[in-house]
Amino acid sequence: MPQLRKDLTSRTWVVIASERGKRPHDFKVVPDQKKGEGNCPFCPGHEGETPPEVLALGRGEITPDIPGWKVRIVPNKFPALSQESVEPSFRDGPLVQRPGIGVHEVLVESPDHNSTFGTHSQEQMEQILGAMISRIKQLRADSRLEYVQLFKNVGRTAGASLEHTHCQLIATPIVPPVVDEELRCAHFYYEQYHSCVWCDLLTKAHENGLVVEASPHFAVICPFASRVPYQMLILPTRHGGEFESISQNELADLAAVLRRTVRKLEVAFNSPPYNLQWHISPLHEPGDYDRYFHWHLELLPRLTIAAGFELGSGIYINPTAPELAAQELREVKIDATTGI
Amino acid sequence: MPQLRKDLTSRTWVVIASERGKRPHDFKVVPDQKKGEGNCPFCPGHEGETPPEVLALGRGEITPDIPGWKVRIVPNKFPALSQESVEPSFRDGPLVQRPGIGVHEVLVESPDHNSTFGTHSQEQMEQILGAMISRIKQLRADSRLEYVQLFKNVGRTAGASLEHTHCQLIATPIVPPVVDEELRCAHFYYEQYHSCVWCDLLTKAHENGLVVEASPHFAVICPFASRVPYQMLILPTRHGGEFESISQNELADLAAVLRRTVRKLEVAFNSPPYNLQWHISPLHEPGDYDRYFHWHLELLPRLTIAAGFELGSGIYINPTAPELAAQELREVKIDATTGI
Repeated sequence: MPQLRKDLTSRTWVVIASERGKRPHDFKVVPDQKKGEGNCPFCPGHEGETPPEVLALGRGEITPDIPGWKVRIVPNKFPALSQESVEPSFRDGPLVQRPGIGVHEVLVESPDHNSTFGTHSQEQMEQILGAMISRIKQLRADSRLEYVQLFKNVGRTAGASLEHTHCQLIATPIVPPVVDEELRCAHFYYEQYHSCVWCDLLTKAHENGLVVEASPHFAVICPFASRVPYQMLILPTRHGGEFESISQNELADLAAVLRRTVRKLEVAFNSPPYNLQWHISPLHEPGDYDRYFHWHLELLPRLTIAAGFELGSGIYINPTAPELAAQELREVKIDATTGI
Repeated sequence: MPQLRKDLTSRTWVVIASERGKRPHDFKVVPDQKKGEGNCPFCPGHEGETPPEVLALGRGEITPDIPGWKVRIVPNKFPALSQESVEPSFRDGPLVQRPGIGVHEVLVESPDHNSTFGTHSQEQMEQILGAMISRIKQLRADSRLEYVQLFKNVGRTAGASLEHTHCQLIATPIVPPVVDEELRCAHFYYEQYHSCVWCDLLTKAHENGLVVEASPHFAVICPFASRVPYQMLILPTRHGGEFESISQNELADLAAVLRRTVRKLEVAFNSPPYNLQWHISPLHEPGDYDRYFHWHLELLPRLTIAAGFELGSGIYINPTAPELAAQELREVKIDATTGI
């Protein structure tokens, strides 16, 4: 029988249609046709085809925009937001507009066109996370920016347009609505229970068989109110709001957890499309976020389609109970070739 | 230069990447391969393949579940919610669950497998809207239900799994989050300006070239803060919260407006996937919704994909300014064959 569950971190409701019990083989994933590395602007030797790099790791030389890098961050050639936007701000009754000031960059994760979060080496993944943290710290200097959204789209149906393995970063002049809502919800929960909603979700995940993996510093769980099948949350076990203040040990552990988690998804679902989002504290707002906000990563496999009901109501229909999803994911055997 | 616009009816922000200025021919729509009517459970003669009908219009006979109907409402064979759900309610710290009580039905719009909202006759469309209204009025009797979500998915990438022209109806035991947020936002606006946010949006749409069509009783506008290219709002010009209390004249006008609006989309984009949602007042809550809530239809063409940035932030990147979208849509010539 269907259950309605509420996600207290977002006020979202989901219908868990548990009797459907969709397992990995029930989802047909058709891999994208690969274009290959022929004309890829992110492959080594094509550095001139992107705007000049803003950060590169692993290249000994000082000369920018030449091969030799391990990780490279470049401005997006077609940025959604621009630091030069001079559009006017105005308010006219129900119309509200501001200039689209911001930063939109691409993090090229590896010189290897075909590597993935599931097949990168441990060292490569650590460099990727290190580059993200460096860039967040740099962007903090621009007082016009309020938030840095880090995300990764894999597969055409998840919105990826270029296939060379990459993440993106969009810095916005506002605290985005999803983050704002999470902050409100977490604050409300904190006022009620005097504890962090994510810390409590983690405790309850252990009690209810929702944990996919617990590493020294992180846990991977299928949220009790998962919006989509096989949704995962990667939570640091140490409470805190700032991704960029993790220790070197924590960073190494996160790199290993991310590699294993994505590899499981790749093995179980034949490399499905997915979106991965960082949920972190805003850049500048003072406040006491650290008391009640707990940074985390959200991994959303794109195995189903949000349709009219979801768009109109904000209620999601999930045909796989998260308890089943966690169990299936725990049992996935990761191949030894990746050395994980 | 990009602009940031806020939708005051949902607290959503959008980036209008106006310099991209994507016109209809910039979006490649690949029509779904049609399976045809061979084994369609919604075609006349197959009435036994659906659960017993709850409503049928146009058939003289009293015998149910035989051909002769013009519009037919049947329970969904795989309902998301069920009136029989006996799952327990509980609250355990951050875990919240309720039984998934509700109704999930399919409105088969026509005996004609291949007709669409853009090609139905005027009479057919009036019967469809009439059937919806009858069903909402019946469902109001069940005090466990708080909302009726009417919606329509067209095309596989918009979530449609059956191709025979149909709408769906899901009645929920909660006011859905999107509706709840709209009610809050509209109430907040009303307190500030002593007027309805949708009435004001309509006035401003006229002043800013955002109107696609103004009929005697309805207006079709591209919202100032459109989340997706060619998004449209169909608004009654008479303020009010209840779809089901429209007059016969208004119903006939809405039928004509819907036919023209969808036909324009079909002609301009080669029958693209889209979602259409009714936003109406909750069923039972007393309150003064009628003062500040204004029912409407939201039409979302699925020409772009919501990816990690949208999912993580709740900010949407729209490559077509709504001013351009409205202009393009005004200029679409509807073919005469449909008699519209």
